Amino acid sequence: MKRTHQNGELRLSHANEKVTLVGWVAKRRNLGSLVFIDLRDRSGIVQLVFDETMEESVKDVRNEYVLQVEGIVSERKDKNPKLATGEIEIKVESIKIINTAETTPIIVADETDALEDTRLKYRYLDIRRNQIKNNLILRHEVCLLVRNFLSKLGFVEIETPILCKSTPEGARDYLVPSRISNGKFYALPQSPQLYKQLLMVGGMERYFQIARCFRDEDLRADRQPEFTQIDIEMSFVDEEDVWSVVESLMREIFTQVKGVNLPEFKRLTYVECMSRYGSDKPDTRFGLELNDVTEVFKNTSFEIFKNIIDAKGIINAICLKNGGDKFSRKDLDKLQDYAKVYGAKALSYLKYSNQELSGSIAKVVSDDEKAELIRKFELAENDLLLFIADKKKVAQTALGALRTKLGHDLGLIDESLYNFLWVTNFPMFEYNEEENRYVAAHHPFTSPNLEDVDKLMSNQENCYSRAYDLVLNGYELLSGSIRIHDQKVQAKVFEAIGMSQEEAKDKFGWFIEAFKYGTPPHGGVGIGLERLIMILSGTDNIRDVVAFPKTASASDLMSEAPNSVDEKQLKELGIKLNK
Amino acid sequence: MKRTHQNGELRLSHANEKVTLVGWVAKRRNLGSLVFIDLRDRSGIVQLVFDETMEESVKDVRNEYVLQVEGIVSERKDKNPKLATGEIEIKVESIKIINTAETTPIIVADETDALEDTRLKYRYLDIRRNQIKNNLILRHEVCLLVRNFLSKLGFVEIETPILCKSTPEGARDYLVPSRISNGKFYALPQSPQLYKQLLMVGGMERYFQIARCFRDEDLRADRQPEFTQIDIEMSFVDEEDVWSVVESLMREIFTQVKGVNLPEFKRLTYVECMSRYGSDKPDTRFGLELNDVTEVFKNTSFEIFKNIIDAKGIINAICLKNGGDKFSRKDLDKLQDYAKVYGAKALSYLKYSNQELSGSIAKVVSDDEKAELIRKFELAENDLLLFIADKKKVAQTALGALRTKLGHDLGLIDESLYNFLWVTNFPMFEYNEEENRYVAAHHPFTSPNLEDVDKLMSNQENCYSRAYDLVLNGYELLSGSIRIHDQKVQAKVFEAIGMSQEEAKDKFGWFIEAFKYGTPPHGGVGIGLERLIMILSGTDNIRDVVAFPKTASASDLMSEAPNSVDEKQLKELGIKLNK
Repeated sequence: MKRTHQNGELRLSHANEKVTLVGWVAKRRNLGSLVFIDLRDRSGIVQLVFDETMEESVKDVRNEYVLQVEGIVSERKDKNPKLATGEIEIKVESIKIINTAETTPIIVADETDALEDTRLKYRYLDIRRNQIKNNLILRHEVCLLVRNFLSKLGFVEIETPILCKSTPEGARDYLVPSRISNGKFYALPQSPQLYKQLLMVGGMERYFQIARCFRDEDLRADRQPEFTQIDIEMSFVDEEDVWSVVESLMREIFTQVKGVNLPEFKRLTYVECMSRYGSDKPDTRFGLELNDVTEVFKNTSFEIFKNIIDAKGIINAICLKNGGDKFSRKDLDKLQDYAKVYGAKALSYLKYSNQELSGSIAKVVSDDEKAELIRKFELAENDLLLFIADKKKVAQTALGALRTKLGHDLGLIDESLYNFLWVTNFPMFEYNEEENRYVAAHHPFTSPNLEDVDKLMSNQENCYSRAYDLVLNGYELLSGSIRIHDQKVQAKVFEAIGMSQEEAKDKFGWFIEAFKYGTPPHGGVGIGLERLIMILSGTDNIRDVVAFPKTASASDLMSEAPNSVDEKQLKELGIKLNK
Repeated sequence: MKRTHQNGELRLSHANEKVTLVGWVAKRRNLGSLVFIDLRDRSGIVQLVFDETMEESVKDVRNEYVLQVEGIVSERKDKNPKLATGEIEIKVESIKIINTAETTPIIVADETDALEDTRLKYRYLDIRRNQIKNNLILRHEVCLLVRNFLSKLGFVEIETPILCKSTPEGARDYLVPSRISNGKFYALPQSPQLYKQLLMVGGMERYFQIARCFRDEDLRADRQPEFTQIDIEMSFVDEEDVWSVVESLMREIFTQVKGVNLPEFKRLTYVECMSRYGSDKPDTRFGLELNDVTEVFKNTSFEIFKNIIDAKGIINAICLKNGGDKFSRKDLDKLQDYAKVYGAKALSYLKYSNQELSGSIAKVVSDDEKAELIRKFELAENDLLLFIADKKKVAQTALGALRTKLGHDLGLIDESLYNFLWVTNFPMFEYNEEENRYVAAHHPFTSPNLEDVDKLMSNQENCYSRAYDLVLNGYELLSGSIRIHDQKVQAKVFEAIGMSQEEAKDKFGWFIEAFKYGTPPHGGVGIGLERLIMILSGTDNIRDVVAFPKTASASDLMSEAPNSVDEKQLKELGIKLNK
């Protein structure tokens, strides 16, 4: 018998039982000839106590040694209420050293001051720490829950290929040279998008996959070169059907994992969302909404505002109730610097105090305009107005970023809330300055809004799509869309992004060919698994929820991948290094 | 309401209900102005009936059109007992053509005479066929069952990287050039072997993963360049613990999927298995075992046998009861040709008839030897003995292959049986003629048998390991081992395969470093998922259980991957084609 119990499960109710335990030495201290050892396994820690004179070998036992012990569960005199097993200890009768351990480069404890690079190099030691271990277990539990939940709804999990075809019109692909077909390459999938749509053509009706995806992009803090997506696709559906599945899935996850009954999922169109929050992934746990006050200044004599309005820009404002005394002139300059990062040229402000507005633009704003602002915002003593006047997109984005910063800095956020928001009707296209053409904002298989189909060729800018995001507390948790199932519409969309029929056939021919043979209406989502686990576990570091993560330069500090390979391997693949 | 029911679930009990259905036209026929359409969705087929004069549009409806219909469930006059919904039909009141379809390149029906290449090119149509669709659903169900079963046993599913480090000592890796570190490469994992062992070092104790694996090898009929493995690893275990988990998992799968209560899992060591069946993955659903009759011929005057025995070869025989008249001289020549493929130089035979042995070696076998054969095999009228005399390995392998062929050809196999067999104690090393050294037979982290540790350096040939396979009906379903957890033993094994300390450090340093810090005893298995689903679904074509399979030349006929990529992409990766 290697073990009779998990260490972490022992309680006072086990008192006087003889147990066999295994685990790692988490801590060791001597008290005279008595030795106390905290023995850790995956389930937790239990205290061992024994007499050193009993077994010579114990003298050598150090941290992280692997032990097997036999002993009697006994009630402790000095109970430790912080430990689940703190009411008992094990009076050890025999001990066996299963393996030794050198001094570990990082300490296996809840708190660590080890550099992250060291933790990544010795990831197997980092995984012994509760923080990482528990995140991995949580990730497992959520995945299992997702699989069971979707399966009950009739979804079938289907594995799609990792060795795929390189497709244009997306992020950068990871490539895999072919040995059998020298000079040709596979690409690792950025998502199973095309395959899942083909499964809908194939009549699978309800598909999902917890799927590995790959993007060879320069990594931001919250990205990994390989990541995992809860990928869902459904046939014979519209937006409401997809959202209903996602909402019920999220309710199940948050009930099971957090014990939380989620409030209603709000909805905003992209246009509404940008005008109210200056972001397509707003944190709606606090107010501080944006207000378009262009109308207030329509006859302004303040030249800067006037020029912006004439150039079809807007004046955007947020009102900080009772915030006037929270910001010095210097603070406001810093806020302006912050706004400038997002392209704003300036941040103006007005404080309301003693029935009067003072501040950076107090002298150039007319009395009528002031009165209108006071009325509109129902200004009270010590309120603060912040203005950004600029091109619409800049005024929204910069003030939206400022809103988020203020929400955090001023502690306006109720961290106990989980505010879900559907953002819908995204723009169909966005203009790519570099390529001097419109490109698909989501991907070119996203259905345009039915009423916008006629605008596809003539008015791309005002063409909206059936793409949607689900936002949670300011993070984009998923995105998805209803897809095109009509070949004629697909042809128009390709044309709208400047792709000739020949080009479309060359790039996506194998895919659009499928749509000739009876394609059902379909749509779906891809949910960022790491993001979801990060939110559920309360970490803001994606590497805390990945077993063996990579650094920002896409390298694995533990195995030292990527690495150099033999010349022979390259020769077989028909490639050579381009030095 | 897009649909009220799945087509395949409608029964007589639904009679007179008004239903809305969707699906694909599987068949259409006219009877006067009446039109009958078989409407197919994922759940099955239901018959629609309606009057063509009612709706003009119906005239155009052809196979694989996508329809939405409303109608009343009605009892059929001419019931179809072959169809689950065969007692009813839908009297259609309204019909909507959701999408049209061109004539499909393959017919969507259970039986197909389409070439496999055509089926692979139009895989999305092939998936509409019950055979493929049902296999994919079965695969999903088995995976879900495996996940739930292992989770209940405390196993945690953990995703290990796909972008890994290229490791020597295995099959050929797929490589992925790095853009950020030009000149360096990732490798796709042949299995999560090293990562799962590091998870054991990391204290996860019970890990599993349904993991994608990759091998860039020339493909046999039952291989794919990417395949899936039910990967399991456990700490603080020996063979019995691992086997117990696997056996209970297999029992659960076969009970749930096949309604079969599996018989006892038999066990044989590799040596026993080779001597009794001439194979390390024997089909034990029939007898026809091999017999070493070297002893019978120890004093033979038959020079060929004598020379073989002197050279430490063996004489191996199988006895075909009542098989004497089943084989003409020509048939036996063909069997000999078959044996020669496996390296045998000749196949000898003796028939027993009228109390006498006749046949190819009747004249050179002495009367004493004949008497001994008659006694040993309890020969009766019309029995047949087949002999291969050769080096032990050849005599076993060739006669083992012949045994399998005879088992199939003579219909000796009871197809209803699921005979599981653990083959244990595999050789630790095998001699690689090309490299002129011993290499690890399993992988270099496999533990030697404890009693063979002393032989590691001096007697590699007779060193056996704690590696095991699970064989089902002649197929290797999984392989696994207890791993080395003792650094000293690991060092010896590297030395035994001719790897210097420096070389070992260079190749596996990052991995063996981990073993310094308290490594628990551990072991596990990798179960071939495709093989398991093939056996459960009764197909012998691996491509029937993979959604989007590749051909023997590792290409995807549907997407035409691999393909050529832009020069720009290669430049970013720091590689060029070696023409």
